[in-house]
Amino acid sequence: MAVYTEVPDEALVRFIERYGLGELRSFKGIAEGVENTNYLLQTSKGSFILTLYEKRVARSDLPFFLGLMEHLAEAGVSCPTPMHDDRGQALSQLCGRPAAVISFLPGVSVSAPSVAHCAAVGQALAQLHLAGASYGLRRENALGPEAWAPMFAQFSYRSDEIQPGLRTVVEQELLVLQAGWPRDLPEGVIHADLFPDNVFFLGGALSGLIDFYFACWDALAYDIAICLNAWCFEKDFTFNREKGRALLTGYSAARPLQARELDAMPVLARGAAMRFLLTRTHDWLHHDSNALVSPHDPRDYVARLKFHQQVASIAEYGL
Amino acid sequence: MAVYTEVPDEALVRFIERYGLGELRSFKGIAEGVENTNYLLQTSKGSFILTLYEKRVARSDLPFFLGLMEHLAEAGVSCPTPMHDDRGQALSQLCGRPAAVISFLPGVSVSAPSVAHCAAVGQALAQLHLAGASYGLRRENALGPEAWAPMFAQFSYRSDEIQPGLRTVVEQELLVLQAGWPRDLPEGVIHADLFPDNVFFLGGALSGLIDFYFACWDALAYDIAICLNAWCFEKDFTFNREKGRALLTGYSAARPLQARELDAMPVLARGAAMRFLLTRTHDWLHHDSNALVSPHDPRDYVARLKFHQQVASIAEYGL
Repeated sequence: MAVYTEVPDEALVRFIERYGLGELRSFKGIAEGVENTNYLLQTSKGSFILTLYEKRVARSDLPFFLGLMEHLAEAGVSCPTPMHDDRGQALSQLCGRPAAVISFLPGVSVSAPSVAHCAAVGQALAQLHLAGASYGLRRENALGPEAWAPMFAQFSYRSDEIQPGLRTVVEQELLVLQAGWPRDLPEGVIHADLFPDNVFFLGGALSGLIDFYFACWDALAYDIAICLNAWCFEKDFTFNREKGRALLTGYSAARPLQARELDAMPVLARGAAMRFLLTRTHDWLHHDSNALVSPHDPRDYVARLKFHQQVASIAEYGL
Repeated sequence: MAVYTEVPDEALVRFIERYGLGELRSFKGIAEGVENTNYLLQTSKGSFILTLYEKRVARSDLPFFLGLMEHLAEAGVSCPTPMHDDRGQALSQLCGRPAAVISFLPGVSVSAPSVAHCAAVGQALAQLHLAGASYGLRRENALGPEAWAPMFAQFSYRSDEIQPGLRTVVEQELLVLQAGWPRDLPEGVIHADLFPDNVFFLGGALSGLIDFYFACWDALAYDIAICLNAWCFEKDFTFNREKGRALLTGYSAARPLQARELDAMPVLARGAAMRFLLTRTHDWLHHDSNALVSPHDPRDYVARLKFHQQVASIAEYGL
């Protein structure tokens, strides 16, 4: 969420010449996405995003991410798509970092999603899953259920600093998830991070999805569970069943859900809450209080987890 | 150089409605300017900058800055100009901070200025001075010669951490500047911070000046001295006389320099080097090593100061 790498103008001008984007009219470092450096370029041919991939994104994963955006865009999903340089390459190098130029997607993310926004994101998620089915590359979910216990072990001794008793809550929940995690669900390419800041709207309509840098191969319904967590809770952490219904109905209209996916939703939602609880706890404990970027409060996901723990069936999510 | 205040989309949409800028198509937090929060807005009517003024800019100075940009733009200086809301106001409030929407200036700043860039910036500076002469408001230079000794006294005991012997260098120089500072030079509105990142070029031609948040009333030639420091040194801190000549000649073509201004240039250049040496030393010593924004190295201005200390006349700057 900041500019980690300053690109000198001369280097930028030389770099983008190879993409045939016309004359450069402005470039501004922007605060967007995961921990990469992003510049918004305006040229005589339009707007583009230049991304320099910083340490948090593995270089070996970049062909998967860039190829996926291109595949999805070709399949009709509204998402940024990488530009190709004069050698036909989407992945390049700038200032010693892997770099890519991607198309600019107009739109504004919503910070307080409405029921209609939830319906739209549900539908878009299903379309992403359908379009992803024909994608040839595969990436394992580095933040999937197998990663949770080892991750927590690294900082569990400090987790009660965040909330007294948190360590016990997490350890018990990890046992439940390990025992009950469903293994037989339809799988495919998932976004894995489709939070409101990664979905753009224009004039009330969904205009596109961004930030595919957590995308991976996993249970499709797990992606829905992430969205139920990210889109359907109110600021007081009560679950809004109307939003849940809108999201699930919007999704089902494009890709009908199987009975086993519906049955698994409570445990998937618990797992999704656990995944963000763990990464936020990590970031919170390892955050420098003087840094400019504020970490998200992990307790938001303790509250979500507690809700999901008492959910018995999909009906409580609104279906 | 970062987004300090996150503006929720709903608040932004409501806020900009009052400016009649058309439909919002995107907004991105950008890393630009002094310590304010800046967003680049794209609307159906074009691009605009939304600035939220953070603590480093005094609220009472904002009418001076915004009025100056408007005055200069009307006088033909290419610079951002504030938009007015439906009550005719340029200064408003958003997320608890003073806020303004200003026009977007296309262009790219140069990180390694050429002789031609120096000539263009000299001319633009003179035009700014001429246009500023008819501006009705006045703001004292809060970082002028009177401020230097008290500023240094706050952290002089730590200054040798930056470079052994720096404390003595600064203390002796402050005495020289106090004794020899010229008081009878033509005065007016100066930019006071016209570094390369505040000047935009398009296709080789200067397209505009930005960031007027240090502008104040002071000796016009002092503004030139700031530019000689900022534009005419090479990366090894040697002064490039050809660039100096271009800057001074470019300036003089629009506003001829008086003999006393030429005579004062060496001491003004020492003072300008001192001003940036002091603020950079302050920022360096008070900087958190984990913060995302790297402070500029104050030693760059020790090297410049040493050059100016041995300059006898304007000829050594190229004229």
